[in-house]
Amino acid sequence: MSRPAVLAPDGGQQGATVPATVPATMPATMPATMRAAVLRGPGDVVVEERAVPRPGPGEVVVRVSSVGVCGSDTHYYDHGRIGRFVVESPLVLGHEAAGEVAALGPGVTSPAVGQRVSVEPGVPDLTCPQCLAGRYNLCPGMRFFATPPIDGAFAEYVVVHAAFAHPVPDTVGDDAAALLEPLSVGIWACRRGGVGPGSRVLVTGAGPIGLVSVQAALAFGATEVVVSDVNPARLALARDLGATEVVDARTARVTDLPRPPQVLLECSGHPGATGEAVRALDRAGRAVLVGMGGDELALPLSVVQERELEVTGTFRYAGTWPTAIPLVAAGRIDLDRLVTGAYGLDQAEAALTAGRTDPESVKVVVHPQV
Amino acid sequence: MSRPAVLAPDGGQQGATVPATVPATMPATMPATMRAAVLRGPGDVVVEERAVPRPGPGEVVVRVSSVGVCGSDTHYYDHGRIGRFVVESPLVLGHEAAGEVAALGPGVTSPAVGQRVSVEPGVPDLTCPQCLAGRYNLCPGMRFFATPPIDGAFAEYVVVHAAFAHPVPDTVGDDAAALLEPLSVGIWACRRGGVGPGSRVLVTGAGPIGLVSVQAALAFGATEVVVSDVNPARLALARDLGATEVVDARTARVTDLPRPPQVLLECSGHPGATGEAVRALDRAGRAVLVGMGGDELALPLSVVQERELEVTGTFRYAGTWPTAIPLVAAGRIDLDRLVTGAYGLDQAEAALTAGRTDPESVKVVVHPQV
Amino acid sequence: MSRPAVLAPDGGQQGATVPATVPATMPATMPATMRAAVLRGPGDVVVEERAVPRPGPGEVVVRVSSVGVCGSDTHYYDHGRIGRFVVESPLVLGHEAAGEVAALGPGVTSPAVGQRVSVEPGVPDLTCPQCLAGRYNLCPGMRFFATPPIDGAFAEYVVVHAAFAHPVPDTVGDDAAALLEPLSVGIWACRRGGVGPGSRVLVTGAGPIGLVSVQAALAFGATEVVVSDVNPARLALARDLGATEVVDARTARVTDLPRPPQVLLECSGHPGATGEAVRALDRAGRAVLVGMGGDELALPLSVVQERELEVTGTFRYAGTWPTAIPLVAAGRIDLDRLVTGAYGLDQAEAALTAGRTDPESVKVVVHPQV
Amino acid sequence: MSRPAVLAPDGGQQGATVPATVPATMPATMPATMRAAVLRGPGDVVVEERAVPRPGPGEVVVRVSSVGVCGSDTHYYDHGRIGRFVVESPLVLGHEAAGEVAALGPGVTSPAVGQRVSVEPGVPDLTCPQCLAGRYNLCPGMRFFATPPIDGAFAEYVVVHAAFAHPVPDTVGDDAAALLEPLSVGIWACRRGGVGPGSRVLVTGAGPIGLVSVQAALAFGATEVVVSDVNPARLALARDLGATEVVDARTARVTDLPRPPQVLLECSGHPGATGEAVRALDRAGRAVLVGMGGDELALPLSVVQERELEVTGTFRYAGTWPTAIPLVAAGRIDLDRLVTGAYGLDQAEAALTAGRTDPESVKVVVHPQV
Repeated sequence: MSRPAVLAPDGGQQGATVPATVPATMPATMPATMRAAVLRGPGDVVVEERAVPRPGPGEVVVRVSSVGVCGSDTHYYDHGRIGRFVVESPLVLGHEAAGEVAALGPGVTSPAVGQRVSVEPGVPDLTCPQCLAGRYNLCPGMRFFATPPIDGAFAEYVVVHAAFAHPVPDTVGDDAAALLEPLSVGIWACRRGGVGPGSRVLVTGAGPIGLVSVQAALAFGATEVVVSDVNPARLALARDLGATEVVDARTARVTDLPRPPQVLLECSGHPGATGEAVRALDRAGRAVLVGMGGDELALPLSVVQERELEVTGTFRYAGTWPTAIPLVAAGRIDLDRLVTGAYGLDQAEAALTAGRTDPESVKVVVHPQV
Repeated sequence: MSRPAVLAPDGGQQGATVPATVPATMPATMPATMRAAVLRGPGDVVVEERAVPRPGPGEVVVRVSSVGVCGSDTHYYDHGRIGRFVVESPLVLGHEAAGEVAALGPGVTSPAVGQRVSVEPGVPDLTCPQCLAGRYNLCPGMRFFATPPIDGAFAEYVVVHAAFAHPVPDTVGDDAAALLEPLSVGIWACRRGGVGPGSRVLVTGAGPIGLVSVQAALAFGATEVVVSDVNPARLALARDLGATEVVDARTARVTDLPRPPQVLLECSGHPGATGEAVRALDRAGRAVLVGMGGDELALPLSVVQERELEVTGTFRYAGTWPTAIPLVAAGRIDLDRLVTGAYGLDQAEAALTAGRTDPESVKVVVHPQV
Repeated sequence: MSRPAVLAPDGGQQGATVPATVPATMPATMPATMRAAVLRGPGDVVVEERAVPRPGPGEVVVRVSSVGVCGSDTHYYDHGRIGRFVVESPLVLGHEAAGEVAALGPGVTSPAVGQRVSVEPGVPDLTCPQCLAGRYNLCPGMRFFATPPIDGAFAEYVVVHAAFAHPVPDTVGDDAAALLEPLSVGIWACRRGGVGPGSRVLVTGAGPIGLVSVQAALAFGATEVVVSDVNPARLALARDLGATEVVDARTARVTDLPRPPQVLLECSGHPGATGEAVRALDRAGRAVLVGMGGDELALPLSVVQERELEVTGTFRYAGTWPTAIPLVAAGRIDLDRLVTGAYGLDQAEAALTAGRTDPESVKVVVHPQV
Repeated sequence: MSRPAVLAPDGGQQGATVPATVPATMPATMPATMRAAVLRGPGDVVVEERAVPRPGPGEVVVRVSSVGVCGSDTHYYDHGRIGRFVVESPLVLGHEAAGEVAALGPGVTSPAVGQRVSVEPGVPDLTCPQCLAGRYNLCPGMRFFATPPIDGAFAEYVVVHAAFAHPVPDTVGDDAAALLEPLSVGIWACRRGGVGPGSRVLVTGAGPIGLVSVQAALAFGATEVVVSDVNPARLALARDLGATEVVDARTARVTDLPRPPQVLLECSGHPGATGEAVRALDRAGRAVLVGMGGDELALPLSVVQERELEVTGTFRYAGTWPTAIPLVAAGRIDLDRLVTGAYGLDQAEAALTAGRTDPESVKVVVHPQV
């Protein structure tokens, strides 16, 4: 059955692509080369001069203003690999990026040159069954920044598909625009966990992901957000960010909470903590396993069965920027509060090791134009 | 297949009922008679002395502290009927009630005598297919306050099933506790409409239900909440309560909004407004028809089809108090702000007509103990 | 907001309860005593003469025609306990029951005396948060047949709430009506697993629950239903019942299937099988843990995360009879095919041990009137 | 947060696209020109010789074996337009197509040349918000066969995106493969309506879409499928296809059904029938508006509200072929049974008018190679 479509509202978010007959837009002011911080091997980062990447059809070039440093960046820096992903040739790290559109590839009319954008760092193939079902985070053909052999954003310029360069309003600063990426992880966790108005949520682990998850849960309407960690400074920050209760896991147990949580957002990656937290859940509770921590988890089977718990993994995110941007723009989530340090591109190595040397460090950012 | 249950957390909300071998609790201080405002016919309300109702098994007696006046109360007062529901014998109006538990029927141990509670005014049969499916608002056997022939709450005491007398913390005042009932309508509308973080919502009609819907939508995470009405005072109040934009329907059209809303919460009951508002929705939008307004609605069929809109009715609510209470207790929703007048029981008639005489009136309450 | 209800269709399933002013219906032909098979301790079942139970308000007496024997019955018979549930006083086993309504308690008008019914053997408190949310299987106040200290159905008569005595048409025989209970477990598993048209399903374990799960999955529209077990006879039966492929787990691995399943219905209770089956799932797959097997399960964490698998427990069922009855009545599911033996009440002990002595045994039933 | 992906099962459905470095595959046997039936204006169809279309990147050429004739084709033939879609230049009709892959565009490795496929005739832009959310049927950039100015499939060859050329097994014949398109409409309607095991469904209108909806509903597990129409021959066919009851709308009313349906699949496009059918629904029912019939629908508002009905439009389908193919391959749905006539390309005009001249006609197909 066919039926012609009428013109219909579309959220003001017109598709970013147009017929490829639209030529590329390459401002004359764009330089030919740029600096990039390149990981050559474990503990070996150098700044190199490289050609500015050229945008393909449907792509844009982004002049990077801020990039967050993630634990995975640090892990590649320390070990030269994550599991079977091995840095076999020089790799640019960084996947939490924001900037300004500097050039447009063929067929692109939006976003415009000069538009400030937050970069969604994984571009799927768009046509596999997972993509067509709206689960593009599970696309087997995903190309993700800073995952060998795809370069990341510790550079002055990056290229990304136009539809994955999300315009941000001026009320969202550069660092916050970069940190929409980790916030997306927290938003996705809340979606997978079904967090909603009045929810009672437990967040285990108060690192950057735990802290954005706390804020996301509150923005989703949760009215009890308990956070557990072993680091008092992080628990204090969690409380500042709106956690309604904190549990120092060195001395207290989440199974002793007066009212059992309905949703667990597990962000510690600590297997023992996970098992106990699952046992703390209410009937019909949901556990979202965000933190990575080994290959196996000892799941309390009888508890899962008798309370009909749902335990779910998360893998990155899909469709989170349209939620993250208005929440941050409206001031419901404060990402700048997480930033404990900023570095120029030449200091990329210091940025990568800041968390190791400073116990107060939460999230550091790199400003590639500095 | 059978499996024994282990003891499991249950949200601290133990079932309200226990074996009927628990005897009733009837404090000696409870009087034998009480005052009640009784509707004898259109425009005819008198205060009568009546016997305090006795709780049956599973029921509690609530000493009423506050009762909101609803448009349906006023409609019964004015016309003696709503549709086929006719006031054929004297009827006590009022179904938005709060108070303090005064006595317990057989088998009840919770809530305790003295506990402040908000009354959910409709008790279903609990065992029909709709009830067993969690949709007890659609129970054909529902007994609802102030709907002939069931008496309501314009009285010093009422009886209700223990599970429908919801404990409220002291941070929720008496009037707010009473107004959890209309808030429930707004919460239910948001649930039916799938309002969530970052949603763009249009609320048509800024009466009490529209105004609680605005607040509910914000508490559900909506970041754009546009309100339309023809009354500037109400639009101003909507803005005070957090609406991000208001539309004076006398001079502007919701179809001209720069970004089409994703969810419509129709609270005006005005057929023309509804049709236009449906046309304003984005693709995959949802329209929730809360306002009552005649038997038929001219639905723009081709728009509904081509944008795959979902249009849904709402009928009261189910399971909303557990959401409403923590939202109000946490200060995310302000119900006291809606109260524009309070009356003693002897002034019930003035309360019922306040909206007619005062254009600034939004929600008035009756305090039966005064 | 209040609104009077109009008369509306209700699926022909009128609420079973009416005002308690309706007196009880106790036919004169009903005897005063009956036979019941009573478990006095491990391995000790005797038939006793007991008083026929009297129905309370809202209850009916059912004259039992058929009762299935479940693994939990056998476990109580063998060990006198399941976990912390201990048979401390004589207990009547059996919870898969069907029969004919023999008497009505006060307030009951439906189902009528003489109506053939299938018994849903767990009656919740109906008013706790889980019940009001439509998840009555998680009710902490659930009273379940043949779970100490609640007697079961290896008896000539049982009492059950009228709403849990589900009328069955004559096209559903007595044994099939009894086996709607284990079928409910399979239906619930399919619901929890999101089985739908075109689904690819893996069922691990081809015991009675695995076999009803196979049939349920097919009735839900699954087009690939793979069954694994170590028992060739059971695999052959699975194939007869519609499984599209079988895997002999002694020689083949489910991780080698050409197309990965989307849903796992784990019915073996074997921890090793479960872990491997989870690893066999497709991205976005769902694993439903039905089989009981110890306290902990080693969950392949990284697989669960990277494929975003959902792992869920099941605990009995809720609202399954309205689905089960028409499926069996329409011939889409064949429960009689599972029955491998029938015993009189005096042979209850033989029925309880049939599975142990006969490798071909799948499901045996007890006919208490014989 | 980043995390490398492990290799994971993906349903055996690998993404159809690969790096564009893979060159096009153009067999030498493919001709340069082909015949196509072209609509030049109302009632004016001629067969022309045209160049065989060349596949772009990611596309395949399909040698068409069968094309169904849809009411929209006939409408364009009769009127030269549908609403604002006007045939302003010659247009090839036909969008229900199947065939064999004849050539591959650059970057395509799958499906292979020679693979039999069913064509999904609308290709979205893949990157707009609707596409990324998995609702690609609502994509504003959709390019749909036989909708001006996009040519359709009444031709020997067509080009389509590789991911929209769905491989079919040999158990699905050419005509059935073509009719997966209208079946998709029925499957989508069932999804939108939440049809599931044991559902009671009412299908109004027994034309081709109504008849595939009947079959889809049964495949989704519905156990009561009532069909209403005014044409006895079509009602008889509906019954042959599995409808459990038929209603001759000339003499009977669906509001008189003994058990109210839970889901309405409205396929008649008749406003009066729709209003009555909505009134026939059970509480919590869902009405899916598939049939097109004018701009406005008089919706029974109070019924929609008091029963909390959900009324939803449908627009084509998304992600239905992966469901449709196994259902037809497994024999659960019989599409060949709908075919009442087959025509060669030269007889396209006769095919387009067959429904007008033959009251027994249900679905005719064009075989372009004949």
